[in-house]
Amino acid sequence: MRTVYWDFETQSLHLIDQRLLPQKLEIATYTDPNSVADAIRDMAVRGAPAIGAAAAFGLALAGFQSRARSTPDLLADLERASVVLKESRPTAVNLPWAVNRIMAQARTFSGSTEDMRLFVLNQAQLLADEDVETNKRMAVHGAGLINNGDTVIHHCNTGSLATVDWGTALGVIRMAHEQGKQVHVLVDETRPRLQGARLTAWELGQYGIPYEIITDNMAGYFLQSGQVNSVFFGGDRVAANGDVANKIGTYMLALAAHDNGVNAYSVVPTSTMDLSLAHGGLIPIEERSADEVLDIQFHGERVTPVDAKARNPAFDVTPNRLISAIVTENGIVYPPYKINLKKVVNS
Amino acid sequence: MRTVYWDFETQSLHLIDQRLLPQKLEIATYTDPNSVADAIRDMAVRGAPAIGAAAAFGLALAGFQSRARSTPDLLADLERASVVLKESRPTAVNLPWAVNRIMAQARTFSGSTEDMRLFVLNQAQLLADEDVETNKRMAVHGAGLINNGDTVIHHCNTGSLATVDWGTALGVIRMAHEQGKQVHVLVDETRPRLQGARLTAWELGQYGIPYEIITDNMAGYFLQSGQVNSVFFGGDRVAANGDVANKIGTYMLALAAHDNGVNAYSVVPTSTMDLSLAHGGLIPIEERSADEVLDIQFHGERVTPVDAKARNPAFDVTPNRLISAIVTENGIVYPPYKINLKKVVNS
Repeated sequence: MRTVYWDFETQSLHLIDQRLLPQKLEIATYTDPNSVADAIRDMAVRGAPAIGAAAAFGLALAGFQSRARSTPDLLADLERASVVLKESRPTAVNLPWAVNRIMAQARTFSGSTEDMRLFVLNQAQLLADEDVETNKRMAVHGAGLINNGDTVIHHCNTGSLATVDWGTALGVIRMAHEQGKQVHVLVDETRPRLQGARLTAWELGQYGIPYEIITDNMAGYFLQSGQVNSVFFGGDRVAANGDVANKIGTYMLALAAHDNGVNAYSVVPTSTMDLSLAHGGLIPIEERSADEVLDIQFHGERVTPVDAKARNPAFDVTPNRLISAIVTENGIVYPPYKINLKKVVNS
Repeated sequence: MRTVYWDFETQSLHLIDQRLLPQKLEIATYTDPNSVADAIRDMAVRGAPAIGAAAAFGLALAGFQSRARSTPDLLADLERASVVLKESRPTAVNLPWAVNRIMAQARTFSGSTEDMRLFVLNQAQLLADEDVETNKRMAVHGAGLINNGDTVIHHCNTGSLATVDWGTALGVIRMAHEQGKQVHVLVDETRPRLQGARLTAWELGQYGIPYEIITDNMAGYFLQSGQVNSVFFGGDRVAANGDVANKIGTYMLALAAHDNGVNAYSVVPTSTMDLSLAHGGLIPIEERSADEVLDIQFHGERVTPVDAKARNPAFDVTPNRLISAIVTENGIVYPPYKINLKKVVNS
């Protein structure tokens, strides 16, 4: 089952509601683009590639929902929906990348409104199918970085659930496992939303890959005591110099890896690269509701004082100097990123 | 009210049960040393100075509980209790320091068994009183490191609750606040047991010091974006070279501070120093139950898969190169620690 998929019978978008896993595997149905934008904002669907694909299908829904009788009117409705979808979350570039790609295609279309609706859907479907292929190509490239017997730290969730299917960083680990390598994963729980403890642990259980959950602040201990061979994470936006914006905590993890001479790898499709930004300091960082930090219970009791305040930046930027290599569908990119990223994006 | 105090009417030890705060302020009563050892192990009482004082009073309880009719027999009972108390937790050196200090005094005592019981109690009371004075002296020394308008990150809980009263690192922040300086605290929630979100937030609320809770993995973001002036934490054992064992996550925090040119300070009484250990790699690191990592709920739902495994090292070692200074009751110690720590311990 894909995380993000189109139901051709009902012409609706289906998403696994990732907020309910691993307790419940529930599929939510979407028929209008605003609800898809809400699902992205509320993180029912999350992960840079997954939200890109969801937004692409959101445009298809906008087409079917539109009452336009001319292609210019239909295009105008699509343009309106594209703005809402792109504004749903700011950091991952896959979201505007996917929306812009579909819109560029839609703008070149000539034909009936009915054909245009189907054309947009087909383009979204193509994008989703490509995502799965892209992930598998990344996985094959990246699996060579993992040796038999390795212990790796993985941050956030970058598996099937973060993509249309297969995964980015977790896809690499899965591929190494399928190649017969023994891999042990230390799973960063990934506060505040616990995508690691919740989703990555669940996926690894499904694949039969042994793992142990750790709190994010334990990574340094395991790295320092020589128990870790490499560190893997995805990415939400990669700047032209190789700085990587990713889930909060990635910077401290990569820093601890670097301090102990352990390689840290970002696994991202080229659609996650934003070569228009010279460095990571220019990437917009989303700050989410304080409630995600405060509404935590330990042994069944809420722990924070009732009037407590909190901060909640959802991403940070890992400087290129801390990233050993960036794994893409077009191959592994090593420093200097400023030169080498261009080659892989254009290849 | 002190975190750890003796009730002279009932000859019993009272401890604030820190597992219930901030929801409930409950005082537990102890009359036998084994229960005190359990309270230390289960973290009803926690914080290096607080568990030292609790163990000292645990010896007083052993004295009152003993049916010995001769001082050698009474001393033998105390020796037995001292072993149990010292074994309750391995990392903080204040625990054996306090127990060894009381036992050394008891061994030199000559007089009746009844007088010996009171002597041990008086020595424990003296140790507890000294802890408060020691903390206030540290606070005065350390407050000079905080400037008006500073934002500081604080890890774990090092306040009144972690000591007999006043606190170590949090005591420094409190003193700066009482001196009229504006201080804003970013409170590391401190997974897995959330001593920051739970106890430090509560204490700061009591003192009227503005704060915001952050997840531990966010510290790097705030340091990197120039929003932090200094970083403060306590310590559970300081080796002769200045390596500091402290609550898990301290290493990654100090590393992120160092990477951004922000000073990181450990605030510890000299009783936390173990000059018999050449470096931090020799400090025993406690690994606690996986359940502390796994039994976490977000928005009311347990998030980890039912069969999930976890690791749970409770401390890590921050190398001396990442520590800008160590604040003690005898003054602020700067590198080279190997030379300068000796001076302050002997002063």
